[in-house]
Amino acid sequence: MRVVQKYGGTSVGSVERIRAVAQRCLATQRRGHEVVVIVSAMAGETNRLLARARAIAPEPDERECGVIAATGEQVSVGLLALAIQALGGKAQSFLGHQVRVLTDSAFARARIRDVDGARITRALSEGTIAIVAGFQGTDEHGNITTLGRGGSDTSGVAVAAALKADVCEIYTDVDGVYTADPSVCPDARKIERISDEEMLELASLGAKVLQIRSVELGMKHGVRIHVRSSFNDNPGTWVVPEEGPMEEVLVAGVTCARDEAKITVLDVPDLPGVAAAMFKPLAEVGVVVDTLVQNLGADGRADVTFTVPRGDLKRAVATLKAECRDLVKGGVQADDSYAKVSVVGVGMRSHAGVATRMFELLAAEGINIAMISTSEIKISCVIEAKYAELAVRILHAGFGLGQPPAGTRPKAARPRRATPRARSRAPR
Amino acid sequence: MRVVQKYGGTSVGSVERIRAVAQRCLATQRRGHEVVVIVSAMAGETNRLLARARAIAPEPDERECGVIAATGEQVSVGLLALAIQALGGKAQSFLGHQVRVLTDSAFARARIRDVDGARITRALSEGTIAIVAGFQGTDEHGNITTLGRGGSDTSGVAVAAALKADVCEIYTDVDGVYTADPSVCPDARKIERISDEEMLELASLGAKVLQIRSVELGMKHGVRIHVRSSFNDNPGTWVVPEEGPMEEVLVAGVTCARDEAKITVLDVPDLPGVAAAMFKPLAEVGVVVDTLVQNLGADGRADVTFTVPRGDLKRAVATLKAECRDLVKGGVQADDSYAKVSVVGVGMRSHAGVATRMFELLAAEGINIAMISTSEIKISCVIEAKYAELAVRILHAGFGLGQPPAGTRPKAARPRRATPRARSRAPR
Repeated sequence: MRVVQKYGGTSVGSVERIRAVAQRCLATQRRGHEVVVIVSAMAGETNRLLARARAIAPEPDERECGVIAATGEQVSVGLLALAIQALGGKAQSFLGHQVRVLTDSAFARARIRDVDGARITRALSEGTIAIVAGFQGTDEHGNITTLGRGGSDTSGVAVAAALKADVCEIYTDVDGVYTADPSVCPDARKIERISDEEMLELASLGAKVLQIRSVELGMKHGVRIHVRSSFNDNPGTWVVPEEGPMEEVLVAGVTCARDEAKITVLDVPDLPGVAAAMFKPLAEVGVVVDTLVQNLGADGRADVTFTVPRGDLKRAVATLKAECRDLVKGGVQADDSYAKVSVVGVGMRSHAGVATRMFELLAAEGINIAMISTSEIKISCVIEAKYAELAVRILHAGFGLGQPPAGTRPKAARPRRATPRARSRAPR
Repeated sequence: MRVVQKYGGTSVGSVERIRAVAQRCLATQRRGHEVVVIVSAMAGETNRLLARARAIAPEPDERECGVIAATGEQVSVGLLALAIQALGGKAQSFLGHQVRVLTDSAFARARIRDVDGARITRALSEGTIAIVAGFQGTDEHGNITTLGRGGSDTSGVAVAAALKADVCEIYTDVDGVYTADPSVCPDARKIERISDEEMLELASLGAKVLQIRSVELGMKHGVRIHVRSSFNDNPGTWVVPEEGPMEEVLVAGVTCARDEAKITVLDVPDLPGVAAAMFKPLAEVGVVVDTLVQNLGADGRADVTFTVPRGDLKRAVATLKAECRDLVKGGVQADDSYAKVSVVGVGMRSHAGVATRMFELLAAEGINIAMISTSEIKISCVIEAKYAELAVRILHAGFGLGQPPAGTRPKAARPRRATPRARSRAPR
């Protein structure tokens, strides 16, 4: 087998941890596998480097920030190569431009265009463990680019796809994907097997275990992802294409995005193009608008409410007032203490009533729902931030996530490789 | 003018220092010059990174060490680019592989083969200050290489040569090259103008102000080097081709290499090839043999004495005993407390008596000379380490170096560019 292992910052956070990772890599190789390792910067290192950059320039240039931040992973790959060699193994480090991981030129949030696995394949054929710097790539001009927070997950999956690896193991400091954040729900349960679409929703709704783009990339290329802990040998969570046996689980997990802010623009004319006129200037200053509702009045006017990340609130309000003077003259209300709690599950496709149950559970505890947004497999409610933990616990218990599902999801000991994958979207 | 400025670790050792360097770069540009900057890692950073590597592996692989160590300069170039931008200037960083600085594959002590200045020239033509990472290059396979301690000096001179720069300013934490180490000789004087050959001898004999290879490279390509302080605007020391007006200075400076060890191999047959038989295995384990004397006995046998760096003493003795068992059976004596004190000056070419004067000065203070080595422009004496500072002071005073030379060396305000340089070696 060809195994890609990605280790996050806490997994390589100290000399001892790096040695432990080296041992795991060698153990994998001794079982007869070809091993490619993607590593993040040591825990805290990226923040330390970016703090240095900001000490020089409050809003530093993204190209130069990338040059600085990419050194975190560069140190990690060198140290891990040394650790494997010190244990008698063969290892060689590869940087983004050496692999090479070709990206576009969006410096701080570059997207991978192509991965050339030739140098890695050559190393593997010589029995060498190839250690690849996560988070970084190079654009067509040879500039260093970085992939954004959590980008090493995406590096791992992209390399796994390019090398047609049999599995991409994402090592982290938790045992896998949980039905809710265990620090909020003590009875949260590790999910043995989760569909890639559920994982995508969870990742986009606040679960930090995998970068969204890595899940998208895994879906696109049929990469089998196994999220597991580098601190023990327990099996973790397999992210798998949606297949037959999982339909009986209604809700896979509960997640929560804190740090939401709510903006209401009052008394806006209810005409086509009004929303675009407001959201275009926001997009131009990099504010991502999330959940949106529009309350139509009797007089052909409406109140438009939407959420933005809390850190962007000031900028969003200032931009609206500067760029949409006519639209906002009815007034703008801003409130920065909201959270978005979501339940996610592919079972919702075939079962009605999840939304109703969710609203009932929240209402029973007196939690007011400010806004609602839904997709085929998730329901999100924007609520006051102070109720966030309570809501997660209520929903986790109310949907019975603390108990193991009654034999509905088979163990993922030998997940099949599905290429090409046919995902059934037909109602069941 | 096209100006290359190289800043050492203390010159970029803090946020404040980096800002000061940025200001200096911009001031140079405002005077109408094209500015290329080479920077070292922040002071202490390279040691910190290598300590991390050694915490993982006591004798770390040189390729991976280079990958780790090169991040020091990578952070520096990014930070300096940000600092220049924060002051309103245009700047862009370049790493060794981006320039590119092509080297051989001797990872920790690579030699520059070629510098491709095209990307830098393009940046300069756009009014951008080009900031190049010192100390690092890339081999033909795209591996990262490093140039050894002080390698950023060599990067600076190599880039200056490739770009046909009008001057290469080497910024450091001292005002220039001194007649002796000012911490040993309080009356040591800054040299305004030193010949490149004297500089080469001083650099190879313990003066740390410039890496030897940078001086060699400067001589080869006719690069005008100006060693000066980044902490003030004083003119420093110009390293210039040997030309007419400097012949009247007998001795330019006194320098001292501490950390010498002396090995004597007793009772060796005095036959051709014996020295080679001993020194080949030493070279193979990377021990550089320095000063050497051979005392011939009456019976066709000899004692061979030579010096090695103190840190290599154990390895040298062990290698001799293992590889040259027959030659060393007369016994090996090792002593690790020696120093080599040297006087350097092109004036020695045309004046006899410098050696005699040096021996007299040392003898007058009761300092015993263990070994002597000479070249056309220097005399070195190996003495007991405890006398090192005393010897430097005696020689500095004895050769009258505390007083400015009596108008013999003209000021270097407008050094001529000598390309190609014709250096007169005729006796005067």
